[in-house]
This record gives sequence, structure tokens and C-alpha cells, in this order.
Amino acid sequence: MPTSLPTSHDKLLFTPGPLTTSLSVKQAMLRDAGSWHFEFNATVKSIREKLLRLAGLAEGSGYECVLLQGSGTFGVEAVFATCIPPSGKVAVLANGAYGERMLLMLQHLKIDHVALRTPENIPNDPMALDRTLEADKAITHVAAVHCETTTGILNPIREIGEVVQKHRRSFVVDAMSSFGAIPIDFRQAGIDYLISAANKCIEGAPGFSFAICRRAALFGCEGYARSLSLDLLGQLKGFEKNGQFRYTPPTHSILAFAQALRELEEEGGIAARGERYRRNHEVLLEGMCRLGFRPYLDASVQSFIITSFHFPDDPRFTFDEFYRRLCEKGFIIYPGKISQADTFRIGSIGRLFEADIHALLDGIRRTVREMEIQWLSKRVA
Amino acid sequence: MPTSLPTSHDKLLFTPGPLTTSLSVKQAMLRDAGSWHFEFNATVKSIREKLLRLAGLAEGSGYECVLLQGSGTFGVEAVFATCIPPSGKVAVLANGAYGERMLLMLQHLKIDHVALRTPENIPNDPMALDRTLEADKAITHVAAVHCETTTGILNPIREIGEVVQKHRRSFVVDAMSSFGAIPIDFRQAGIDYLISAANKCIEGAPGFSFAICRRAALFGCEGYARSLSLDLLGQLKGFEKNGQFRYTPPTHSILAFAQALRELEEEGGIAARGERYRRNHEVLLEGMCRLGFRPYLDASVQSFIITSFHFPDDPRFTFDEFYRRLCEKGFIIYPGKISQADTFRIGSIGRLFEADIHALLDGIRRTVREMEIQWLSKRVA
Repeated sequence: MPTSLPTSHDKLLFTPGPLTTSLSVKQAMLRDAGSWHFEFNATVKSIREKLLRLAGLAEGSGYECVLLQGSGTFGVEAVFATCIPPSGKVAVLANGAYGERMLLMLQHLKIDHVALRTPENIPNDPMALDRTLEADKAITHVAAVHCETTTGILNPIREIGEVVQKHRRSFVVDAMSSFGAIPIDFRQAGIDYLISAANKCIEGAPGFSFAICRRAALFGCEGYARSLSLDLLGQLKGFEKNGQFRYTPPTHSILAFAQALRELEEEGGIAARGERYRRNHEVLLEGMCRLGFRPYLDASVQSFIITSFHFPDDPRFTFDEFYRRLCEKGFIIYPGKISQADTFRIGSIGRLFEADIHALLDGIRRTVREMEIQWLSKRVA
Repeated sequence: MPTSLPTSHDKLLFTPGPLTTSLSVKQAMLRDAGSWHFEFNATVKSIREKLLRLAGLAEGSGYECVLLQGSGTFGVEAVFATCIPPSGKVAVLANGAYGERMLLMLQHLKIDHVALRTPENIPNDPMALDRTLEADKAITHVAAVHCETTTGILNPIREIGEVVQKHRRSFVVDAMSSFGAIPIDFRQAGIDYLISAANKCIEGAPGFSFAICRRAALFGCEGYARSLSLDLLGQLKGFEKNGQFRYTPPTHSILAFAQALRELEEEGGIAARGERYRRNHEVLLEGMCRLGFRPYLDASVQSFIITSFHFPDDPRFTFDEFYRRLCEKGFIIYPGKISQADTFRIGSIGRLFEADIHALLDGIRRTVREMEIQWLSKRVA
């Protein structure tokens, strides 16, 4: 059974990213590429094409893939900064930190917006959106987060997209932590703009995000850009003019990503990768429940990307000590981000295999024993 | 004599960046760091402190260093997007593409501005600035590019800064390609904000920029930010709150940069690095002139960072063929960016030593012979 342990002296990252990557992906960064050079430009072109194919969008599909320097957040903000007309208004479906972050972006960009919130453990509500779009004709765009890593909840982007299409609005999807592992039907969901990043399910090194955009929609945004760096249309025109990034690209991260895409193909594409993550999640959830931990989300809305667990009720449990002791054993987990409950998070994505999850579970079992957390025996009994 | 050739199978990059880096800098990227982890945060803190010290600004100097995801352009735009008040106006000293790019940013951000242009081969004019600031009291900020890599010209930021201080305006310096190799006196030049990037004279891998900001100036900008991703004050507050980047950092690029800073110290700091680049430039210029090439700039305004050369007058010369033949020999040079003359550029920065310049010159000599460029013998004679 493959494991990442022998290939790296690093602690394993059970996080929503940056993730553990393969040694071969990292080794692809042992090169200095000229950003103006035709070889590098060919790599960039190939990445853009492969991402479209991964999205199920062949050439001639009317979609384009635009890479943008920076983190995923830069990519999401670039879509808003570039694509919302001056008189536009965005309805944001929010049930976690990433939906709230979209609202913050719109505030900064001085773009009119409205929030449609559900609690953090409840998916976005397409029916509420339907009513809102019916009532408010000023709304031009709807934005949603596919997998909210705040909790690990999966939002129903297909159903949301059907409502958006019925009302003939434009649809923006933050698929940061889902693209590459969960199939997304762009046409059925009527997606105009979808954003993800290099260091999520494609398992590359961080350094850039990418937006898959409906070409006609993006080219309809001429003159809207509120930022030069974040101008997605300008970026696409740059690629189409001479194959280059307009401004210095993260060349090493691009080379790592090209290798990561090769390894995704070798693994068997989105289906196989999703299956590995799903198995990681199942083994994790089963093992954690056996140890006495309780997941935050109901199984029906839980993604296999990342899982939130409640803190034990025992006062001997502190997250800092739990984290530190796991870290000493070679495992890095993630703190919670939920406002309504004390939780921590464990990711299932990145170059992690079932054996790594078993190793983590063993580390958690030993840590719980070291910390003398009492509820464990009670719950297990 | 040290050379980069044996440590890399890559072509050497004689460009303004991304540059040739040391193998050890690239090897620092063979690790996956958790962006929330305290070890990584300690690295980020150390980088921010070391950059301040490199700038001659000790702790308690009233300056702060803010790292920002993306290329150098993102860093420059972040300063404008964060630090110019709604009623502000920026005077941009422009004599090349990077000054023009600042003007483009200000247009996108809808910030009032005025251009003070000089021809591409003439440095910024502090006396013209003096008259402009005298006449236009609406101007709140002055922005200049230290080394304009469009040509390689060095602009007089100290003299400009003295004019800015006399008129009590704020001073923004793009020191992208000079910081780390050319000493800059922040106090004498009265610099409020200076921007550079990971992959220039510090010789790291691209992926982020950094802004060295006068703390009181930056904290006076609360509420101005026109973008969430590019909010430098928000970014600084994030570092000060929990040591973390607000959004996913390019972890591998950060690790490479930490190593690059160690190697800069080992080399002897800014003075020694500047000396190596100066020597690279001198050997290049002398060798190129001997081959019959003419530099675009007058020696009195030429930096040792990058040098522009006129195309030969011979119709047998085409840049594409010249570039391709040099590339086949293992050398990547850079096209020109000047509007008024046909030039190409050769950089002296990055992990390049005198032996590499000699190797390049030999490659150029052979290429000129292969292309049967006639003026060569005439000029040499």
C-alpha cells in the first residue's frame, strides 16, 4: 500500500492546504525556467488545456482557463473585480468563512451585494435563493462555495445553478477544495466562473489560482476591472497574445503543477483521486468515532475533503496540547474555524493514503491516552 | 572561480527575473510546510526581520516588512490600493514600462494621478517634480522606479526623495530589481513604502513580493483598502495577530527565500552581492563592446542590474534567431521593451558569476559568426 511517509522527512499535513505533495512534484521545482521562454510558455498552455479537460470542457467548449498569481483568495477576488459590472449586485450564499470572505471582498471592491446565510452545519438553500432572485431583479450574479472547508460541508451547486439559470443570472463557484476530486458539471450547473488553486486536490505547490471562465461572459466584462493585477480578462488576453503571464509567474510552482497533473492522470483522474480521498475520509471517520470523537456535521452533508470534530467534553483536553503532541508524532492537523462550536479539523486530501490515516489514528489514540482524556473509555465502552 | 553551470542542468537566465538561483535555494523547496504551523510562522517572522535589517532598518525603526502573495506588480498595486486616501493623488515619475504600469494601476484603482515623464534614456527629473509639487497641492504621494529594467536606467531616488520631503508628501519606491544589491537609505530618501520581490537580487524563487512600510504611514490608511487580497494593512495586522499570512502563502517559495537570505549573508550582504553584479555587468559591457554591440544607455545612468543593447544594423540580424541560437547554447537573454529603439537586454543578476558572463560572451561571439553578421569585424577593426 503506498504511503507518503518514506518519501518525505516532513510531518504529514492533514489540512485544507497547503497539503502534503509527492516528492516528484517537489523535485519538479529543482529547475529555473525563463518566464519568457517558449518551453515554459508551452507548459503554461498545456496546464490551461489540461485543466479545461479535467473540468469536462474540451477545446471549443466556449470556456477558458486563466491562471493567476497568488492564493485562491486572489482568484476569487479577481473574478469579482473583473466580472461584475459597475451597476452589478452579487448574492452570496454563505455558511462559513469562505462565503463570508466573498462578502468582505465585495465590500472592499465597493460592489453591491446581499448575503443569503444558512447556519454553518446547513447547506446553502436553493429555494431561498429562488425567492431572493424573484424579488430582487438588481442581482446580476450569484456566488457560492462548493466545499466550505470551514466545516467540510458540501453545498448543492447543481441545484443552486439550476435556480441561477432559471433567473438568467451569472454563477460564480469557489471550488477551491473540491475541483480535481469531486466531478463538477459546468453546463448542468450553468457555471460562468469557477475558481480553484494549485495546492488543493491537484496536489501541486501553492503559488497560483486558476479560474475556468465562460469565454463570452469574461469577454463581456471589458472595462470593468477594478485592479490591474487582478484583471482576469487582461490576464487571458496576455496568454492569448504571446503565451505569457502578464507579470512574473511563480515559475517553480507552475513546473510542480505540471508534474502534479501528470500524477493525477497516472492515478486515474478525478474519479480515482476522489475515491482515494473518500476512502481516507471513511477510515478517518470510523477510527475517530471508535476513539470517541464526534463529527460536527451530519453525514448527509459531510464532504470527504475535510472533517470537523467536536472537542472532547473533558477539561483535560486543550487543542494546543493535542496539536503539539500530534505534531511531535509527525502529524499536523488543523484548528477549527467555526463560530458556534469548539472543533478541530482533519483533512483527507493531498498525497495521503489509507496507511497515513491509520498512522494518524494511532497517533491520536496515543495522544488521547497521554493526555488522560477520560471520556474515551466511557464512549468506547 | 565559482560558477552556476555545474549545479544545474538548466539554461542560465540573463534576465530581469525570474533568475537563475542556487541549487541549495531550490532544494529548500523539497519540503511541505504547514502554513498554520509555528515552525513556518517563525520562518516568516525571521524573513520579515531580516529584510528590515537588509534595508538598514533595525527593530524599533518605525518600519515594518509585509510579505504579499503574487508577483512584484501585486506588491506595488497593493501599496496604491491600500495607502492612497480616497481624495489622494499620485505623481508618477515614468521613464519606462514599470512607471507606465504604475499609471495603469492607478487608472484601474480610479485614483487620481499625474505622469511626469522623461524619455526612456533620461533619468527622472527631480527639478520638474519640485515644480509640479509646488504647483499642485492636491498631490499626496510621489511614486518612482529605482532601477527601470525596461532599459536598465537608475533613477535618482535620493534626490527625488529630498524633493518629496521638502514638500511633505509621501514617497513610494518600486525597488524591485535593486533591493538587495544597491544600498538604499530609507531615511535620507524619506521613503514611506518600498516594494521588491522574492526572485530579484535576494535570488529566491518567485511567488511573493514584500513592502517595507513606515508603520505610522501604513496605520494611517485604515479603511482605504480597495481590495481584500491586496490590503497591505490587513496583511500586516494578520502577521501581528498570529504570525500567519491571511491567505495561503507560497510555502515553498518562502522556504527558498529563507535559504536565499542565508546565502546572501554568507556572500557578504548587499555590498558583496552588488559587487558581484557590478563585475558581471562590467565584464559583459566590455565584452559586448569588443564584439561590436552598442549599449543603449549612457554609462552615467546605466545600472549594473540589466543592460540594453542596440540591434546590429545588419539585416541578417533578427532577434528571434539570435535568441534561439543562444538558447541552444544554454543561455537565455531577454527581448527589449523600449518603444523608441530596437534593443535586447542582458541581465547581470541572479546566481551568475564572472565565468558565466565569459561563457555567455563566447556564446554570443559564436552566434554572431554563425549568423554572419558583418558589422562585427568592421566595428572590431
